[in-house]
Amino acid sequence: MGKRIVLALGGNALGNNLPEQMKAVKKTAAAIVDLIEEGDELVIVHGNGPQVGMIQNAMTELVRSDPERYIPCPLSVCVAMSQGYIGYDLQNALREEMLDRGIDQGVATVLTQVEVDPEDPAFAHPTKPIGSFMTQEEAMHLVKERDYEVVEDAGRGWRRVVASPDPISIVEIDTIRSLVETNHTVVACGGGGIPVFKTEGHHLKGAAAVIDKDFAAERLAEQLNADCLIILTAVEKVAVNFNKPDVKWLDELTVEQAQSYIEEGQFAPGSMLPKVEAALRFVQSAPGREALITLLEKARDGIEGKTGTRFVR
Amino acid sequence: MGKRIVLALGGNALGNNLPEQMKAVKKTAAAIVDLIEEGDELVIVHGNGPQVGMIQNAMTELVRSDPERYIPCPLSVCVAMSQGYIGYDLQNALREEMLDRGIDQGVATVLTQVEVDPEDPAFAHPTKPIGSFMTQEEAMHLVKERDYEVVEDAGRGWRRVVASPDPISIVEIDTIRSLVETNHTVVACGGGGIPVFKTEGHHLKGAAAVIDKDFAAERLAEQLNADCLIILTAVEKVAVNFNKPDVKWLDELTVEQAQSYIEEGQFAPGSMLPKVEAALRFVQSAPGREALITLLEKARDGIEGKTGTRFVR
Repeated sequence: MGKRIVLALGGNALGNNLPEQMKAVKKTAAAIVDLIEEGDELVIVHGNGPQVGMIQNAMTELVRSDPERYIPCPLSVCVAMSQGYIGYDLQNALREEMLDRGIDQGVATVLTQVEVDPEDPAFAHPTKPIGSFMTQEEAMHLVKERDYEVVEDAGRGWRRVVASPDPISIVEIDTIRSLVETNHTVVACGGGGIPVFKTEGHHLKGAAAVIDKDFAAERLAEQLNADCLIILTAVEKVAVNFNKPDVKWLDELTVEQAQSYIEEGQFAPGSMLPKVEAALRFVQSAPGREALITLLEKARDGIEGKTGTRFVR
Repeated sequence: MGKRIVLALGGNALGNNLPEQMKAVKKTAAAIVDLIEEGDELVIVHGNGPQVGMIQNAMTELVRSDPERYIPCPLSVCVAMSQGYIGYDLQNALREEMLDRGIDQGVATVLTQVEVDPEDPAFAHPTKPIGSFMTQEEAMHLVKERDYEVVEDAGRGWRRVVASPDPISIVEIDTIRSLVETNHTVVACGGGGIPVFKTEGHHLKGAAAVIDKDFAAERLAEQLNADCLIILTAVEKVAVNFNKPDVKWLDELTVEQAQSYIEEGQFAPGSMLPKVEAALRFVQSAPGREALITLLEKARDGIEGKTGTRFVR
């Protein structure tokens, strides 16, 4: 019996630029199709850090080249573009790998918005740097003209910072569910999703934010009633005392153990911490739900219980 | 009884830049939801001329700003980004308009590839200018380094030209069909679709081309077994002797009449001609299929037979 799995891909699954991406997605697709071959239903969530940075930089250069004609492009629109940019390569790599193995099944990229709360405390303290370095003058201009938040980065120049709020709900959840139920592998919530606020009832407005893709994947997994959330990253297992002589690689983590390690500060913020937190949220959300953190190439072994760090209730 | 309709939107449905687009899509959505209210199934195809031009220009400026770090972005990737850019605004405008009218129905943007033939004669004579003007030096560099075709445009500088081949088949047709059959309004084949060649069996490779969105919509309508293809444009009806004292606005066109007007050169290439040809193709493809060319705001009246130019077999 196949499982319904939401898979969150780490940055290493995509590379940092277009030639790297075209290469990386082939390896990524092979690991994913290993799971599809087992009869599992797969929904893929990917990050977009380098890609949305590149698009944001390109739009900034466009404005610089002709400020009379162009205006800065909202971050939400750059995220939408990055979903097209990455989804195109990723869905094709998946399609080719499936056809190479004789699997005749659809694969689709769904442009996805994710609702966030305008009152999320993250908006009071934007911390996520995006886009290219600017001069102080350029930075101050954007602060004045467009209400941007900026930070000076250790002598390297100024950068825009945005909030990373919690995902509340996936706007296109019914679309994703319809496709999963009609035998599609779905690429969704790319880059954590296009962040939007609900305004005046049901209207949606793009938010100047980026959503952590592991939290977006977790929210998606809950709403899809998935059996399993798999977070793929650059290490095979989660560790405590990481990079120390007494490093300990973990096969299994209970909710209590995980919470106590979090309190000890065992997991790096912006790196392993959000992954552990997302995994925890998922197993706590309902009985019978599993979460796994492992290496991309070990996804199938992980699902079979041979490696990775499994989160249990 | 509702009809299955593929709707091709003209450039006026989207505007030429982001602020124009956000405004234009509201009006466009109102006209489309008029049809959804009648119980029709709608699949929306849109153009992307100004948008893909802007993205291509932005990517060119990015390379200019840091040629060591960035490489030119393939046109197919720019089309993929434009599908995200436009689909995001268009699907939200549709969603809002539907909810405003109490219609609870999904709306989704599907990243769409369209297969073209590498032997299509269009590739021997690329005619479609894209992206910004270049100096002769920049143009010659791209000819040498990247095999681009370029033309000098009446003293305004050099531009890249690409082919506009015929669409053969919609790669994501099963995805689009699944969504239509589960009560979704679907935005698909944006900008005519991402043009791809089939290589070595089932592998797909991006083509340096743009597909006419009216022909892509026609192909999609055939493959979806739609009842009706509606091509929305800036005039209410097709005319012969256009812009002349003896102009004649047409309510109905038989295949024979249309072909004889085409032979007379009544329709402008790159403007009304591809629309008339797409409409003709569709009504000829199977009995009972209708095609209509009319104004965006008149879509509902057109469907009811009150205006527009109807193509009959």
